Amino acid sequence: MQGDNRNGEDAGEIATRKKIRYMQTKGPPASEQVNLRLGYPAPLELPVEGLRKATAAKMAEDDPEFFMYGVPEGFLEFRESLAAFLSKEYGFSVSADDLMAVNGSSGGLDLICKVYTQGGDVVFTENPTYFLAYPTFRDYDLNPVEIPLDEDGVNIEAFEEMLLKYKPKLFYTIPVAHNPTGRTTSAEKRKRIVDLAVKHNFKIVADEVYQLLCFEGVDIPPPFAAFDHKDEHCVISIGSFSKILAPALRLGWLQCLNPVICGIVQKTIDMGILKENIVATRRALFGRCERLRASIRKYMPKEASFEEPIGGYFLIVKLPQGIKSLDLLEEANKNHKVSFLPGTSFGKGFDGYIRLSFSYYCEDDIEIGVKRIADALNVLMRKQGQPATAEA
Amino acid sequence: MQGDNRNGEDAGEIATRKKIRYMQTKGPPASEQVNLRLGYPAPLELPVEGLRKATAAKMAEDDPEFFMYGVPEGFLEFRESLAAFLSKEYGFSVSADDLMAVNGSSGGLDLICKVYTQGGDVVFTENPTYFLAYPTFRDYDLNPVEIPLDEDGVNIEAFEEMLLKYKPKLFYTIPVAHNPTGRTTSAEKRKRIVDLAVKHNFKIVADEVYQLLCFEGVDIPPPFAAFDHKDEHCVISIGSFSKILAPALRLGWLQCLNPVICGIVQKTIDMGILKENIVATRRALFGRCERLRASIRKYMPKEASFEEPIGGYFLIVKLPQGIKSLDLLEEANKNHKVSFLPGTSFGKGFDGYIRLSFSYYCEDDIEIGVKRIADALNVLMRKQGQPATAEA
Repeated sequence: MQGDNRNGEDAGEIATRKKIRYMQTKGPPASEQVNLRLGYPAPLELPVEGLRKATAAKMAEDDPEFFMYGVPEGFLEFRESLAAFLSKEYGFSVSADDLMAVNGSSGGLDLICKVYTQGGDVVFTENPTYFLAYPTFRDYDLNPVEIPLDEDGVNIEAFEEMLLKYKPKLFYTIPVAHNPTGRTTSAEKRKRIVDLAVKHNFKIVADEVYQLLCFEGVDIPPPFAAFDHKDEHCVISIGSFSKILAPALRLGWLQCLNPVICGIVQKTIDMGILKENIVATRRALFGRCERLRASIRKYMPKEASFEEPIGGYFLIVKLPQGIKSLDLLEEANKNHKVSFLPGTSFGKGFDGYIRLSFSYYCEDDIEIGVKRIADALNVLMRKQGQPATAEA
Repeated sequence: MQGDNRNGEDAGEIATRKKIRYMQTKGPPASEQVNLRLGYPAPLELPVEGLRKATAAKMAEDDPEFFMYGVPEGFLEFRESLAAFLSKEYGFSVSADDLMAVNGSSGGLDLICKVYTQGGDVVFTENPTYFLAYPTFRDYDLNPVEIPLDEDGVNIEAFEEMLLKYKPKLFYTIPVAHNPTGRTTSAEKRKRIVDLAVKHNFKIVADEVYQLLCFEGVDIPPPFAAFDHKDEHCVISIGSFSKILAPALRLGWLQCLNPVICGIVQKTIDMGILKENIVATRRALFGRCERLRASIRKYMPKEASFEEPIGGYFLIVKLPQGIKSLDLLEEANKNHKVSFLPGTSFGKGFDGYIRLSFSYYCEDDIEIGVKRIADALNVLMRKQGQPATAEA
């Protein structure tokens, strides 16, 4: 870990020199725009040295069979290391037999759709939800049915009502540090949803990529699979190394698509590099989330409110009455050098919300970004004749 | 390259010690069985030291963005190195813009089916063909229509007849060192197929994973794309590093699924490791193919015939009249410690053929395997009252 030591100038230099070398979307330097839309880890905080050590250790081994066609589920030693790691971190026994390596969390969702659905099937989703799940559902001609998300998880009454109308094959949920809301599904609701899944014969696809990125000391339920009925196997958990090691590894767990990467990642587990990185990442995320919260309180009009995340990457802000997220985005992008994800991207009825990421930019940049969003908001509120009042 | 220095004892030790460490199907030692079914490279010939050097060189670079989410087509530098390499090796200009990294050749075929077909579409295939293409076609609910393969490529008369009946979306072909026959499609037929593709609006999916594994000095047509009409883009070529570097890299070319592997593989290109490995691999394959041919002539009854491969991994043997490949396989497995792929696996009407791989076992083991197949064949021929006559 190199710490949160990036400043506007360094980032500017990097942006110019390496603009298109590797990344799909590069976060601009704060001097240009603070893009709080990006759900990426901060590049300078990636455990490059740890990955170097793990790679060197794996490559130093002298078994050419490591480089042969691998087994579809990922090689046993890798799954055993991962199972032991998860059992400890989750506080819930995970067996190597239950794990399968996949091509990142999106590869996992794709595989689940391929195996468990046919064109025309219904998939229940939370509203709002992770906007990039939809293209996968479209690839498999699935029909998503959106169910409102309460603060403690999906609305059970609405869920049961939809079960009268539809026979879903899957329920796609982000049960912890939800994207975009940051919400966590309560233990009680998890039990209830598993009961419904058993009764109505659907699979719960729990996208738990933020499970290990909850802030220290917060009290969260164990992973969704812990609530599964014995021998029912109605919960499929998706995990990923993208946010706890590095996105470019393209490795998640749930067919071993890449034995080489499995070998390197196993070394990060066995050498303690992964654990160290998770602790450091949580700490950095907590610090940036704290600054984000403080900045919202300091700069945003009191008519804007937000929910407290317990970890993860995101926080959603409810905008003052009458302010639409797309209007704010336009003003923000055009005149204030700041960006974010508008609520229209994550579900119906979220026009009045925006999602701010605290994963990518350093604390100072986050504060600058929030101040800029507040400025943009004030412009819109003045136009609408609303007096904007900062809380602090 | 560590040379073809494996003997029965070493392999036996390895087999016992590491039976299930990484590989899906491990070639048994010759003392146990010679499995000439396996289309795998020989583990002890994999360029482990070269991969180590390339990995160390890439990991020593100091750009954390290499570890971020990558671009879907594979990062530009990788595609540029690969384009320059292919242009030289193919003798035909390949641009970085035309290349896309994929998850091995099977990932490439999967992506092509996802993009270019819909359930119910017809795909033309060669008969016989690569048996593992069929599960992919099934995944996408496609209907394969098999067209007989002549010695110089698909039978054009049969192809045109099928075009009167069907509107294929794809024609899946293995135009060079064909699996299982080892045949190569002539330049003339390639031109003709491209004309048909333009006229009937289908894509030619050329699985060219053996293009760079043709023996030195053989005269083969350039890759299928060289015959494409200008601006028509009806040829999609599939390439793979599985057989020219190592299977576990899970990297082919045609969405960048794995930036880390792209980076390492690029180093093998830039450092000359890939080229060196291709030359050594071709030489080793040639030696083993030579021994395979010599052994067939030496041990097999003269009623068995075979076609001369120009490279690749496989050779098919036409069995004496009346001998069925599945009967021979049963006798071979049960009483002779040898195995191979029966013709029933690669297409209708190939009951009387078997496919022998010369990619995995060393020359001595190949000779032992062929002798054992000949023994099994003699048993069957005696049962059928045929006098078995060895040629030599």
